[in-house]
Amino acid sequence: LRIFSKEEMLDRFNVVRQASLDMVKPLLPEEFRMQVMGDASPAWWNLGHTTWISDRILHEIGARASRWLETYKQPLNSYYMGEKLARDQRGSVTWPSTLNVLDYRVCVDELVRKQIPTIPDAQWPEFSRYLELALQHEQQHQELFYTETKYLRFQNQPKYRQSYRDVPALLHSSGAPPSWFTIPGGLTEIGNAGDGFGWDIEYGIHQRYLEAFQISSRHVTVGEYLHFEEDGGYADESLWKSNGWKWIQSTHIQAPEYWECQYGTWKNWTLAGMRPLWCSEPVCHVSFYEADAYVRWLSRKGDEYAGVRLPTEFEWESASHCIGDSFAKANFLDSGLLHPRAATSEIVLAGEVWSWTTSHFEPYPRYEEYKGFLSEYNGKFMDNQRVLRGGSCVTERTSVSSSTRNFWPPTTRFQFSGIVLVRS
Amino acid sequence: LRIFSKEEMLDRFNVVRQASLDMVKPLLPEEFRMQVMGDASPAWWNLGHTTWISDRILHEIGARASRWLETYKQPLNSYYMGEKLARDQRGSVTWPSTLNVLDYRVCVDELVRKQIPTIPDAQWPEFSRYLELALQHEQQHQELFYTETKYLRFQNQPKYRQSYRDVPALLHSSGAPPSWFTIPGGLTEIGNAGDGFGWDIEYGIHQRYLEAFQISSRHVTVGEYLHFEEDGGYADESLWKSNGWKWIQSTHIQAPEYWECQYGTWKNWTLAGMRPLWCSEPVCHVSFYEADAYVRWLSRKGDEYAGVRLPTEFEWESASHCIGDSFAKANFLDSGLLHPRAATSEIVLAGEVWSWTTSHFEPYPRYEEYKGFLSEYNGKFMDNQRVLRGGSCVTERTSVSSSTRNFWPPTTRFQFSGIVLVRS
Amino acid sequence: LRIFSKEEMLDRFNVVRQASLDMVKPLLPEEFRMQVMGDASPAWWNLGHTTWISDRILHEIGARASRWLETYKQPLNSYYMGEKLARDQRGSVTWPSTLNVLDYRVCVDELVRKQIPTIPDAQWPEFSRYLELALQHEQQHQELFYTETKYLRFQNQPKYRQSYRDVPALLHSSGAPPSWFTIPGGLTEIGNAGDGFGWDIEYGIHQRYLEAFQISSRHVTVGEYLHFEEDGGYADESLWKSNGWKWIQSTHIQAPEYWECQYGTWKNWTLAGMRPLWCSEPVCHVSFYEADAYVRWLSRKGDEYAGVRLPTEFEWESASHCIGDSFAKANFLDSGLLHPRAATSEIVLAGEVWSWTTSHFEPYPRYEEYKGFLSEYNGKFMDNQRVLRGGSCVTERTSVSSSTRNFWPPTTRFQFSGIVLVRS
Amino acid sequence: LRIFSKEEMLDRFNVVRQASLDMVKPLLPEEFRMQVMGDASPAWWNLGHTTWISDRILHEIGARASRWLETYKQPLNSYYMGEKLARDQRGSVTWPSTLNVLDYRVCVDELVRKQIPTIPDAQWPEFSRYLELALQHEQQHQELFYTETKYLRFQNQPKYRQSYRDVPALLHSSGAPPSWFTIPGGLTEIGNAGDGFGWDIEYGIHQRYLEAFQISSRHVTVGEYLHFEEDGGYADESLWKSNGWKWIQSTHIQAPEYWECQYGTWKNWTLAGMRPLWCSEPVCHVSFYEADAYVRWLSRKGDEYAGVRLPTEFEWESASHCIGDSFAKANFLDSGLLHPRAATSEIVLAGEVWSWTTSHFEPYPRYEEYKGFLSEYNGKFMDNQRVLRGGSCVTERTSVSSSTRNFWPPTTRFQFSGIVLVRS
Repeated sequence: LRIFSKEEMLDRFNVVRQASLDMVKPLLPEEFRMQVMGDASPAWWNLGHTTWISDRILHEIGARASRWLETYKQPLNSYYMGEKLARDQRGSVTWPSTLNVLDYRVCVDELVRKQIPTIPDAQWPEFSRYLELALQHEQQHQELFYTETKYLRFQNQPKYRQSYRDVPALLHSSGAPPSWFTIPGGLTEIGNAGDGFGWDIEYGIHQRYLEAFQISSRHVTVGEYLHFEEDGGYADESLWKSNGWKWIQSTHIQAPEYWECQYGTWKNWTLAGMRPLWCSEPVCHVSFYEADAYVRWLSRKGDEYAGVRLPTEFEWESASHCIGDSFAKANFLDSGLLHPRAATSEIVLAGEVWSWTTSHFEPYPRYEEYKGFLSEYNGKFMDNQRVLRGGSCVTERTSVSSSTRNFWPPTTRFQFSGIVLVRS
Repeated sequence: LRIFSKEEMLDRFNVVRQASLDMVKPLLPEEFRMQVMGDASPAWWNLGHTTWISDRILHEIGARASRWLETYKQPLNSYYMGEKLARDQRGSVTWPSTLNVLDYRVCVDELVRKQIPTIPDAQWPEFSRYLELALQHEQQHQELFYTETKYLRFQNQPKYRQSYRDVPALLHSSGAPPSWFTIPGGLTEIGNAGDGFGWDIEYGIHQRYLEAFQISSRHVTVGEYLHFEEDGGYADESLWKSNGWKWIQSTHIQAPEYWECQYGTWKNWTLAGMRPLWCSEPVCHVSFYEADAYVRWLSRKGDEYAGVRLPTEFEWESASHCIGDSFAKANFLDSGLLHPRAATSEIVLAGEVWSWTTSHFEPYPRYEEYKGFLSEYNGKFMDNQRVLRGGSCVTERTSVSSSTRNFWPPTTRFQFSGIVLVRS
Repeated sequence: LRIFSKEEMLDRFNVVRQASLDMVKPLLPEEFRMQVMGDASPAWWNLGHTTWISDRILHEIGARASRWLETYKQPLNSYYMGEKLARDQRGSVTWPSTLNVLDYRVCVDELVRKQIPTIPDAQWPEFSRYLELALQHEQQHQELFYTETKYLRFQNQPKYRQSYRDVPALLHSSGAPPSWFTIPGGLTEIGNAGDGFGWDIEYGIHQRYLEAFQISSRHVTVGEYLHFEEDGGYADESLWKSNGWKWIQSTHIQAPEYWECQYGTWKNWTLAGMRPLWCSEPVCHVSFYEADAYVRWLSRKGDEYAGVRLPTEFEWESASHCIGDSFAKANFLDSGLLHPRAATSEIVLAGEVWSWTTSHFEPYPRYEEYKGFLSEYNGKFMDNQRVLRGGSCVTERTSVSSSTRNFWPPTTRFQFSGIVLVRS
Repeated sequence: LRIFSKEEMLDRFNVVRQASLDMVKPLLPEEFRMQVMGDASPAWWNLGHTTWISDRILHEIGARASRWLETYKQPLNSYYMGEKLARDQRGSVTWPSTLNVLDYRVCVDELVRKQIPTIPDAQWPEFSRYLELALQHEQQHQELFYTETKYLRFQNQPKYRQSYRDVPALLHSSGAPPSWFTIPGGLTEIGNAGDGFGWDIEYGIHQRYLEAFQISSRHVTVGEYLHFEEDGGYADESLWKSNGWKWIQSTHIQAPEYWECQYGTWKNWTLAGMRPLWCSEPVCHVSFYEADAYVRWLSRKGDEYAGVRLPTEFEWESASHCIGDSFAKANFLDSGLLHPRAATSEIVLAGEVWSWTTSHFEPYPRYEEYKGFLSEYNGKFMDNQRVLRGGSCVTERTSVSSSTRNFWPPTTRFQFSGIVLVRS
């Protein structure tokens, strides 16, 4: 793995930490504490939790941690198995206050900045690796923040919802039809073999045997998905997984998250406010169950669509390698758009929206969990979660690659999650 | 009914409205929005809802209402049957913001103040009655605020809970034993026959036939209740209503709300912070089910306690009339103590803590619901709620009398609710 | 209380015990074990439980009990607080088998029959009282059996439901309009003052002060209730108790139990099979919430119906005394009809269907629970249950009088429960 | 695929159909209808459903079906998407009665027997394939019957549980320690490539790349699992999947299904009655979550157990091929033992208990669902189910092979499900 120099790391540390402060600027004081569903954390907690992880890393590598480390362990650690603040109670406590958390950030930031130059060279690789992990972790929470804030502000009545940020209106193409790329079969290497950052779950690198398949050049669009909705897709039990059907029956879900039908017209909630539903954009904020039902519906159309299905995560990764550098031109957080762009004739595999795969989140062969305080992170959640690939318009560019594995339960809709098609 | 003069009413309006602003001063901005259980409303909502009711009353009587009346109807009305903000979603919206609500208060306050002098004398009685109703309603929400804030701040870890207000330490007596007062039987007039304010549910005035009974001179104390707890009262199914037993089994309730056992010592959360549990205080924050189980346990002790039970609301009202003006010396909100006082040898029937009665909240004979926009208030909640009487240490003195009926479901504990005993 | 002679009691014992065997004759072997909702017990259990209570009474009074008493305590006792077979698990066990239970009946019956002649005269009054209690209890379970069997057989598809018994078609009048009887107010004696059997909850006899009121001469009919249903009564939130509204929303209840709309025509399930809905019959199988919403809807019609409401249980009892012997001509189980008769111009206060009252099931003044093994029966269920009065077409004539108090939660519909109106 | 001759098929049909009648002989009439949990069907339904499928197949292939086919569609079809009898309501209906179902069996059996000789040779292959599918399906329901009956009879109190059948006492070895077999890595063919019966989900045959691994020579024993239990395995959150932990917290599960601690000694419920827990038997009736927690606990022991884990289904299938014919000597239903045998030094991969794998139930590449009336069977359940392999002591020998895939949700315990270990 490539090791950042101390100067590079200090720069990167400053940039990432500042980004968290910048992103919360549009919030009212009260919005920092509000938690409107159990899966989403309030902003104060994201700010505090990422700071506590940095603080904990200072301690882990023998550097000087802050004197608040133990104090804030209960509220700011995440999956700690002892006494902990339950995930769905993060909106129920008044301590630590938002001011406490902002102070804590300043304190830990100074500790890190001061100590970086003093780390002995022998320890720098380890320190650097840990610190990069903390920053990658913070970037993940930045993505969560955008999706959580979108969800929070949606809870108001339509007329009184406030946009998060005005962004330039997106140009809208007419939505070019997709083309298909053939990906050859055979043994394929899976896993993070680059010299950039990778999470434990991207290793061990291993072989998978894949049969040849074709992948669509872009994500399924709103317009395409609308046909499914208009064709009664949400009312046809035969299209749905059994658990998915029970779920839409009990939740009365009839369309993707954030779609609202007002006086016969579909509107769509975005981080830039309510907007008409634009058909050429990738469909977004669909659950795995919806993605799965959609492809079953589409496959029954026959002809071009006979046999279409969702990819496995290995197919996606293989396609990403074959197609080449789709990441460079992808729409990530740095575009500032905070929304997927309309489909064009270009190939778009990465960015815009995460692509659901049929793969369950399971360890790779020879997977090793992190040791020590990070050990609880992943293994215990490898159950009833499906893998997503490719990043979205609110993902930090430096936190996603061809081998990055995201994962959510099959009912999750508040992430920017969409659909890509394959066929054998 | 006595009608306030315009000057009296203006004074009273200013006092009550200011009290709402004063009471929220200790809150952090974020605490205005937090809702940590479905039964409790956040502070912003209490401030806004009471204002909207005043605004609505202006409209009702033909005076000039604010231009926000319709805008704020959805979020700030309470039990409105059309489109409404569900009670348990009051912590989930960011609009109207706290600032919006504070502005709205100023606006409506000015409208009321300006128009009072201009009301024609012929309309004054009606206007005055409506306005008094709005102020009484606001005083109820002030009581709710104290109980909700107590509950909110309790959610933090013990070490980090912040008291609402420092209040002088209460002198503690040794807890005088109760004496018994005999109340004669016969036909008794029930209902609000005074010239002060009364809610619809305190009328019609009617006769009840009561058998003679005795009532205890004060509430059950913490020390007395502790015997029940230590005797295994929470583990003895034979003491509990069937529904109550299921409830404590599923909630694992083992003591009154706010009691915490730290290192073998009971502590008690108060609006002035965590404190040792003082045995001579009235026991408080118990549900009806706990009050009911306690008296069953006590009645089995025999001797003096053979046949003790909770009163009916009619027994309580009759006792209150017989014993005379216990309201004048009672510990209400104006004492500033925000907590019940220790038992002394004095008779205490009103104030300190509300007394649970066995009476179900049902209409009196010839009861008439309010007409118009107030009509939804009471009838529909006359189901599975038990009546409480007498007011508590956070009740406004002017909003409670011998005929005042409070009511809550039998599992409610966040109110200052306690126990008084009777025997036949 | 009148004491039966030994011969009378032996006769009565034989009659009641045989009635339980007769009533289960139409069942298939498999139907003895089936439990299709938690509130209803399977037939095997009713047969066994009533036998165990007789057995237990032999033991209680020092006579010879069967050797199975302890063996069958766990499965056949009802509300026993130690180890017990939970009420909703009575369809989940295969032991004791139906044959075991039938054997047990023979065994206990013989023990009772043999010992009656040998009881010393001094002990006969006590023995006799206990035995009568056991028989009254068995008669209650006979009523339950009819309602449970009706419910069980309803679970099949409409075409394949089997009637319990063919009964002669009921003559149908055109449904005479009700008349109103005025009941004077004043002090009224409440409670069982006769020399017949009474449950503990019918004592202590005491005074209630009632205001004068009028009561309808008969129950509300299907035709009258149909107007409520057709007028959108089930969709108008303003008519319903808050808890009732939540309940019909979550259960999607749109009509009384056993009504089914087939091809635009209402059908009604009876113990004699599916039948058209006959408008002149008393409406039946409605919950308290439905009865309450109906009278609110009706009261808004004004004129004759202004101010109509459900009676209190004291009003019902007072009316029953004033109107005189409506029990003698009432339609109880001995008519063999198993269904309410159509309304005529006669006064019908007792029989046909139980009448919901607004009274909560609470003890009378000076109420004393049974001692010993019967002590758990009633007190613990005095919570969120409403009183019904008057008996129904499946109630044994000897088990109901003007003072009999039946009680069920407000959502109960599988009993023959209907509506009678009063107005002030 | 090998096609049975008409004579062979007639024999097989008679044998399989008779086996269903034989297996229910020990049941009481009432036990045919009882359903004590939603996942288990009553015996009447298993008998009827398997018959309806045969009847439906007659119709499908153009032969003469019974005149009851349409009548019994609603209650006896399984996952039919139109009007259907919900799975958890199979114990709630009295129609069709057990006698109806037995009559129906006779009727369909005769239809099949009569028509087999008359099928034109050209249609025989198709007819034969369908009929074999019906018989395989019936054999699956026979396995279900044994597990459901075991569960049903367990619901009684320990003293009064009746064994299903007396079986000879099993000889008990001292439990030989397991040995490890090395399975080479590389490309492996997965799927049913034999000429025997296979379900749709065993095709298409495809390649998987596996890394080399070792597999234990036998299942984990009761004695080995007991160490986990005694070591506090059920109380150590760090061992469990997050969903598994929540599940054992809410269900209070502390040991495998059917283990009961009586006076300090573990007992085990078997189809031959209550027995001491024998340490040398395979542990059985554990959920996936328990299997998963057990291997995590074991892997932390280090040394020999470092890196042990559950196999993937592909590893299991590959091992089964490498180890050779372990099916021939396996303990399946035909042994008559109805319980797993104690471990010996022999290799036991198939039979005894199904082995949980980490593989999620997902389609193989080029999987094709059945067409027509069978189409709903599998695809919609490919969600949150884990694959089990190898068959158990109540599986019919002819219904299981190296490629057979069984699947259940991760909380399922009523199947004979156990644990086999692998390590890389």
